[in-house]
Amino acid sequence: MEYLFSHMVNSMHAEDVKLLMKQSSGKSMISFAGGMPNNDLFPVKQIDEIYNSLPDNLKKLCFQYGPTSGFPPLIKSLEKYLEKKGLPIKSDKILVTTGSLQAISIITQAFVNKGDIILTESPCFVGALTVFETYGADIQGVPIDENGIIISELKSKIDSLDKIPKFLYITPNYHNPAGIIYSPERKKALLDALSGTGIILLEDDAYNDLYFKEDEKYLTKPIKSYESTDVEIIYTGSFSKILGPGFRLGYMLASPEIFDKSETIKQALDACTSNFNQILANEFLKQGKLDSYLDFLRNEYAERKEILIKSLEKFMPNKVMWNEPKGGFYVWLTLPKNINSTTIFKESVKKGVVFVTGRTFDPKSKKDDCFRLAFSNVPKEDIEKGVKILSGAVKKVLGEN
Amino acid sequence: MEYLFSHMVNSMHAEDVKLLMKQSSGKSMISFAGGMPNNDLFPVKQIDEIYNSLPDNLKKLCFQYGPTSGFPPLIKSLEKYLEKKGLPIKSDKILVTTGSLQAISIITQAFVNKGDIILTESPCFVGALTVFETYGADIQGVPIDENGIIISELKSKIDSLDKIPKFLYITPNYHNPAGIIYSPERKKALLDALSGTGIILLEDDAYNDLYFKEDEKYLTKPIKSYESTDVEIIYTGSFSKILGPGFRLGYMLASPEIFDKSETIKQALDACTSNFNQILANEFLKQGKLDSYLDFLRNEYAERKEILIKSLEKFMPNKVMWNEPKGGFYVWLTLPKNINSTTIFKESVKKGVVFVTGRTFDPKSKKDDCFRLAFSNVPKEDIEKGVKILSGAVKKVLGEN
Repeated sequence: MEYLFSHMVNSMHAEDVKLLMKQSSGKSMISFAGGMPNNDLFPVKQIDEIYNSLPDNLKKLCFQYGPTSGFPPLIKSLEKYLEKKGLPIKSDKILVTTGSLQAISIITQAFVNKGDIILTESPCFVGALTVFETYGADIQGVPIDENGIIISELKSKIDSLDKIPKFLYITPNYHNPAGIIYSPERKKALLDALSGTGIILLEDDAYNDLYFKEDEKYLTKPIKSYESTDVEIIYTGSFSKILGPGFRLGYMLASPEIFDKSETIKQALDACTSNFNQILANEFLKQGKLDSYLDFLRNEYAERKEILIKSLEKFMPNKVMWNEPKGGFYVWLTLPKNINSTTIFKESVKKGVVFVTGRTFDPKSKKDDCFRLAFSNVPKEDIEKGVKILSGAVKKVLGEN
Repeated sequence: MEYLFSHMVNSMHAEDVKLLMKQSSGKSMISFAGGMPNNDLFPVKQIDEIYNSLPDNLKKLCFQYGPTSGFPPLIKSLEKYLEKKGLPIKSDKILVTTGSLQAISIITQAFVNKGDIILTESPCFVGALTVFETYGADIQGVPIDENGIIISELKSKIDSLDKIPKFLYITPNYHNPAGIIYSPERKKALLDALSGTGIILLEDDAYNDLYFKEDEKYLTKPIKSYESTDVEIIYTGSFSKILGPGFRLGYMLASPEIFDKSETIKQALDACTSNFNQILANEFLKQGKLDSYLDFLRNEYAERKEILIKSLEKFMPNKVMWNEPKGGFYVWLTLPKNINSTTIFKESVKKGVVFVTGRTFDPKSKKDDCFRLAFSNVPKEDIEKGVKILSGAVKKVLGEN
């Protein structure tokens, strides 16, 4: 119990966790906090089948060291998988990492010295912010709208800085935490804006496969697959959302020069990623089990999203705004001016509902008028109940009840 | 085949790998190079049993994120395991890491800035040297003899430096590459020598369980378990030698202050270590499967060591010296003065035998009059044949045939 509780709070603000600990022992909480799949959604049966049909020599190899760059058959499978997304697997190279967070960590170590500038979206994935802070970066956030990073804001931010930022980190498809997807026009405009600046684009595409509608799949086209420009793009992906975070499997696709630099750092971080996990993941791809599992996942998440949006429409006060995501895990809510999500959080936790406050995702840990609901990890039957409680807390803070 | 070859060369000097690539396609080589268990020695059956009897909720948890510090039940099992070794599990805290190399990497990131001094043994585990180099440390080696680091040399090294070294890194039990074990007297003398210097001791104990004789087990007593002194000791251990490197599982035991610092860095490196691997490893410990497996392993390695020593006595010229290890994976050979192991390597590779040259383990990549034979990864039936070929190469270089 204590353990289940501890990973629920993984992505939460430290202050919010303290409050949560005080208010509750973790029991009977409805959590919209964790940005992970629900335990009941994992492909346990498929991995069982794979594990138990591994030939003897491959099973032994699970226990052994592998090359730093990754288990070669997995790299081949990833090449096929990424080629279908239009990614340049011939000119660029794949490095398998211990989760995609390790890829972000490696790139930060490769390019950033204390005081160097990193551009991010505002709001931004908190895990990446933690990495950037740990390595002493000067993090500069650029606001986003419903179509992606705001290009004029990006340009004036770059102009206002007296150093060239080392890279721009973004999660363009099903943004964490904002739930939006960049429009194709915005993706192109972003490349144009970065052209000639020397700023690397770090494209974190962890949610790429999680579109809700087949006819909107084209929106997920990675920026790295766009017509060649002079912008250096490092693309990262993850098995955490399409197999399970417990495998700690991610990868980066980067130019040979950046690959070499990254491989050297990876060697000094953990020598190689677990062969055990790589071999299972490779069979998952190779045996075509991913496609049918993704069909299942997309339906599950779309259904959860539907219930969440309907519940919000039913219970949430009109003054609160939110987007309806086209994929991924998140709905991002905006409060009326001068209302802090931390105030809502305090009320909500008392009544048994947890979410992640806006300031958690702010590069300066301040802006707090939004908050994130993750629907990926809530049992369907709890969503409406949770939203009702949450809405009650919002109403109380707004003085509406 | 290409893949098997690639991890065989993991710990080899880059120049030696180039030569190896040129001389051979990797086929029909006898390799004394890799410091890893042979694929046929892994506890595949035991892990099969564990995997297939995992209760459903635990299997689902394999796929999920866990706390950064480690899967709590595994930490409890490790506490029991380390307590038996006399380690201070009450005052200190365990951090589970993605292999023990990650623990070394974390400690380096926590304490070392570019240009800071790290003391090592000379020779030293090449994986650690790679980490220290990657983070820009000034590595200062101190020679060892058959009982451990030479205390007078350590003292004069410390006196000669104009900065206080950040830590001393050692592998006291079944040293990699030198195969020796520190005597209890030397362990005590080392603590006395470090007392009052402010130099942290980083004790890498990856081979602790691999003694050959029960009545020599007492020699493996970790330095961290010795009577309390003012020396800060960080202890690291690994599942790579007692379960399989493919699990990428290690840990550190450190004071609460160092634990906190390390946990923050770990969070920014890969968020957490694979739950999948941690849950399997925990059952391996909890169900008592490790003890019987270790009995098997110790016999296997002792047998390989016997064959290797007998073969050396039979074929190797008298001018070459070596130690007889009491445990672990390695025999360390010393050549007559002015003979480089790289010269022997060139001859030996032509005839189909690979090992790791002395300069690979030298903190300055120079001293080359020794070389390492690992018996852990050679099939028993190949050992004598391999030594015969190797001895032929040595004789040729010495002008004895």
